[in-house]
Amino acid sequence: MSTKTGSPRKKLAIVLLSGGLDSCVTLAIASKEHEIALLHAQYYQRTQSRELIAFHKIANHFKVPEDRILITEIDYLKKIGGSSLTDKNLPIDKGETGSVIPNTYVPFRNTLLLSIAVSWAEVIEAEKIFIGAVQQDSPDYPDCRKEYYEAFNKLVEVGTKPSTHIQVVTPIIGMKKADIVKRGIELGAPLPLTWSCYENNDMACGQCNSCILRLRAFEVAGYEDKICYFENV
Amino acid sequence: MSTKTGSPRKKLAIVLLSGGLDSCVTLAIASKEHEIALLHAQYYQRTQSRELIAFHKIANHFKVPEDRILITEIDYLKKIGGSSLTDKNLPIDKGETGSVIPNTYVPFRNTLLLSIAVSWAEVIEAEKIFIGAVQQDSPDYPDCRKEYYEAFNKLVEVGTKPSTHIQVVTPIIGMKKADIVKRGIELGAPLPLTWSCYENNDMACGQCNSCILRLRAFEVAGYEDKICYFENV
Repeated sequence: MSTKTGSPRKKLAIVLLSGGLDSCVTLAIASKEHEIALLHAQYYQRTQSRELIAFHKIANHFKVPEDRILITEIDYLKKIGGSSLTDKNLPIDKGETGSVIPNTYVPFRNTLLLSIAVSWAEVIEAEKIFIGAVQQDSPDYPDCRKEYYEAFNKLVEVGTKPSTHIQVVTPIIGMKKADIVKRGIELGAPLPLTWSCYENNDMACGQCNSCILRLRAFEVAGYEDKICYFENV
Repeated sequence: MSTKTGSPRKKLAIVLLSGGLDSCVTLAIASKEHEIALLHAQYYQRTQSRELIAFHKIANHFKVPEDRILITEIDYLKKIGGSSLTDKNLPIDKGETGSVIPNTYVPFRNTLLLSIAVSWAEVIEAEKIFIGAVQQDSPDYPDCRKEYYEAFNKLVEVGTKPSTHIQVVTPIIGMKKADIVKRGIELGAPLPLTWSCYENNDMACGQCNSCILRLRAFEVAGYEDKICYFENV
């Protein structure tokens, strides 16, 4: 992210990096034209320790300095329950989602994460916030739709200081998963460092909704997924 | 909050209760027509231990059961700084605020708190969220204006499950502080249990922006403020 002497300094953007495939490709896209700050949340999801490892590996790959990294712990999602990602009493929905919202949905989670990003953006004077939402993956997650991001940006406009102009951008929201894999590989994004499985912390289960979407995306894109899966996948 | 046998059960509302005057009066208003759940956030503000005491005293007064209380800890506001409420290196702005945003402003904080409330509301099926925002106190806080709440409600509409209909309501947003005191006393709100001071945890300083607004409100309303202030106030 260094710039040549004399060239204008790139503007600062915050990227929400979970450690998954989509956020990694989003980071690769954002880093082409911005200096990067990274936000990561630990919200007591089942695979949070593994996601944190993926986060740090990807952050290192992109050489993001320590003072541009914010890792926040969010306790309330565990306390309120309602999602199988944070409530171990609920089994993770397997396979593809139909037309109902799967139980891995964490209510209003993206609003929370984006709110934190906007707070931070006000303080560090970042002008954009990148989030790797993908509508196709989760057509029924209310907060993965373009309409939601339009409403959020309106909120940012009226809810922040008049001197700030912060915008949330969703560069891959309309893309198919296989095209996201291709785009990531074109950009040199370190996809083998990412983690997508909702269930496991060691080897990906290959059976949860997130694993299935990922495996199929690599297959359609014509690339090998180099992370480890259980042998029977 | 018990209902007579045979009468319809009151609908559930979440009230954001900081422990201050405004949120206490808002709770008194909400409790007239709703069963109550309470949300309180500890975000490493200077007076958080004192606010938590006030919160519990008020919750007890209203007989809110334990399973309808959510206390969440938010670490990132401390990490990002930018406000004198959470950053001890910044002195608290004294006296009245002029036309600039005071340094007690915590960027986008209300969005964060409301996001948590909406998540919880989805899980416990609350239909309303009450917040004691007051425009007059903080005309330059971007998130204390009606326009902000209209934008937030639009976001809730598009960002939650279609089956939910959660609405944020701001019953005192247009009221003068003295009228809030009067309304609280009319409703029997336990104002002596509330805490407003931004600076101290034992006796209210009487000098910070929040103390000055409170003292003047009681004076104009013609009531005695029964909390303890330093003698020289």
